[in-house]
Amino acid sequence: MTAPDAFVQVDGTTRLLAIIGDPVAQVRSPQLFNDAFRRRGANAVLVPGHVGADDLPAVLDGFRALRNLAGVVVTVPHKVAVARLVPGLSPRAARIGAVNCIRLDNAGTWYGDNVDGAGFVAGLGGEGHAVAGAHVLLVGAGGAGRALAHALCEAGAAALDLYDTRPDTVAALRAQLAACHPGVALAAAPPAAHAGHTLVINASPAGMRDADPIPIDLERAAPDAVVADLIMTPESTRLLLRAQQKGLRIHRGRHLLEASVDDMLAFFRIA
Amino acid sequence: MTAPDAFVQVDGTTRLLAIIGDPVAQVRSPQLFNDAFRRRGANAVLVPGHVGADDLPAVLDGFRALRNLAGVVVTVPHKVAVARLVPGLSPRAARIGAVNCIRLDNAGTWYGDNVDGAGFVAGLGGEGHAVAGAHVLLVGAGGAGRALAHALCEAGAAALDLYDTRPDTVAALRAQLAACHPGVALAAAPPAAHAGHTLVINASPAGMRDADPIPIDLERAAPDAVVADLIMTPESTRLLLRAQQKGLRIHRGRHLLEASVDDMLAFFRIA
Repeated sequence: MTAPDAFVQVDGTTRLLAIIGDPVAQVRSPQLFNDAFRRRGANAVLVPGHVGADDLPAVLDGFRALRNLAGVVVTVPHKVAVARLVPGLSPRAARIGAVNCIRLDNAGTWYGDNVDGAGFVAGLGGEGHAVAGAHVLLVGAGGAGRALAHALCEAGAAALDLYDTRPDTVAALRAQLAACHPGVALAAAPPAAHAGHTLVINASPAGMRDADPIPIDLERAAPDAVVADLIMTPESTRLLLRAQQKGLRIHRGRHLLEASVDDMLAFFRIA
Repeated sequence: MTAPDAFVQVDGTTRLLAIIGDPVAQVRSPQLFNDAFRRRGANAVLVPGHVGADDLPAVLDGFRALRNLAGVVVTVPHKVAVARLVPGLSPRAARIGAVNCIRLDNAGTWYGDNVDGAGFVAGLGGEGHAVAGAHVLLVGAGGAGRALAHALCEAGAAALDLYDTRPDTVAALRAQLAACHPGVALAAAPPAAHAGHTLVINASPAGMRDADPIPIDLERAAPDAVVADLIMTPESTRLLLRAQQKGLRIHRGRHLLEASVDDMLAFFRIA
């Protein structure tokens, strides 16, 4: 359901933003951004765009020609594909190999950034969970996982244990992190929390569907660990429900998005 | 300014519509359609798209790939160009050679219609101005003028005097109307109303800018004539102000759009 304050006004001078994903029905960005526009008095609207992977080039070409477009939010599963399609990338987006927001530069070409990692760290801070000194288990080394890994290292995590079903992906990320953040203890690990982990994170897609297995074994987790899931729909994934059953603290996916809105509006140059 | 009841809610399941024009800042469709969606409880939003003529193919290809797109409203100056780009046209849109709304058919190809003429006639009726038996002076034989000409003949106009700065355009329209509507008295005419005209219509773009000349001479108009202007911005064109000065009845451009919304929503298959 949409909150009453997610109403927005549209007229002929309204600047346009879209969020593209497949599926897109589950996204919360329209409500969050349109509420932010209303609060700031910005004449802009963010709408959903349901786009298949094969159609990304055509959709980006079409959006590029809309002179009142402010930008596009990119979500699952298109973050890596769009990073490959756009000619300009911020240093962090290039390092991660994934974007979550793109805009047109003055020459009319696409430029992409990735504020997922900064948003996740900011969201943790907003809930009172510190990253500095944390021992992290991060499951999922796709676009979102890579964004988080870099941001967690930058924010002072002491150790980062990585897991992905694709061992090569883990090895590549570990090598890149080692080069960028030599002070962090890095390791490949099984998807099982243990007492040493203070922060346990699911950045894999497992949990979006009811039938998905729980992606992380919490059996040996420490009682004071924070368990975070990047998935926003359902709001309570099976992983988070299991964590609550065990009395662990949980951190929901929506905190990342909520903490990212200001960064994204700055990127889109919306007052 | 946007009326308070033009607020709209957007979430991930919202169906998308756009109005494309150049410029687009002046359009009223976002307010009218979004208000209609809200009143009907339809989860849909119409947004403006500022599109140059050269970019129409790219924009249509991009929109075609948005799976949650319900359709596109086409406005000045793109109605004729889009009719040439889309593979499917309704009989009336094909006859007029211009579209004002397009949607995707089940095969994923564009199909266009033109409800301008029906909307104009319905708008006149809503204001108490009859078309049946009318003696009409119609200035402007572009996409909008052609749509009106056919609809006025269908609605029982007795006579139709046509003017356009392009004599060939008038001749072609007159020939087409003669074939379709043999009962209507058709003539080429100067852009000057006389006592015989009961309905005087500007369907040319003259009047959108302050510096434009008044497109129709009202000096010899009958005192009971109705003077209509299709231009919506400014709401009071110089033609309509002159008509009011002379004590003539006026009919504003917005009536066409207001009377077209229901037809368009049916075309877009929005409940």
